[in-house]
Amino acid sequence: MVERGCPVHRAWELLGKRWTALIIRDLIKGKKRFGELQKSLGGVSPKMLSRRLDELKDCGIVKRDVYPEVPLRVEYSLTRKGKDLKMVIDSMAVWGKKWLPETLS
Amino acid sequence: MVERGCPVHRAWELLGKRWTALIIRDLIKGKKRFGELQKSLGGVSPKMLSRRLDELKDCGIVKRDVYPEVPLRVEYSLTRKGKDLKMVIDSMAVWGKKWLPETLS
Repeated sequence: MVERGCPVHRAWELLGKRWTALIIRDLIKGKKRFGELQKSLGGVSPKMLSRRLDELKDCGIVKRDVYPEVPLRVEYSLTRKGKDLKMVIDSMAVWGKKWLPETLS
Repeated sequence: MVERGCPVHRAWELLGKRWTALIIRDLIKGKKRFGELQKSLGGVSPKMLSRRLDELKDCGIVKRDVYPEVPLRVEYSLTRKGKDLKMVIDSMAVWGKKWLPETLS
């Protein structure tokens, strides 16, 4: 039986993608510009980061605010739905800290 | 700065792979045979399930017990490290239930 109704399955389809959890981890700390995110993630291509941010925007986890300044300022932040993922990220951090010591990574 | 020391990053490298979270979700409920897992996961190929189980065994999350019966009985279960992932899976379930209603998935 495929558990299509399973909320873990639904959450994973969103969060399991490469970079997604790390983007959320970084936005939990506060809003960020594209370049700041790229730097804090380290190693993500601009194209891939754009794609992930668009997906997260489309599903209501991330919002994009444009400030009409010169030069234009664009900032990404978490919506309420996105901020609610803190418990998932935190539990991953607790587990990672306990069971995956840095020296083994 | 690449946050290589980040425990979320380390956890994600393990858990972010396709099927991995769902395998753990199913083993949290109790030990299972290969065929039972394949059924409860729905849609995973035997080759992929084998690969994921081997990876999870190699990193100490899953153990494989062989009972010398006829026919041979092989069961997969979570180690303590694996059982500790319950908090991650549970927090995903809570979030998924709240924010991703079944009708929208």
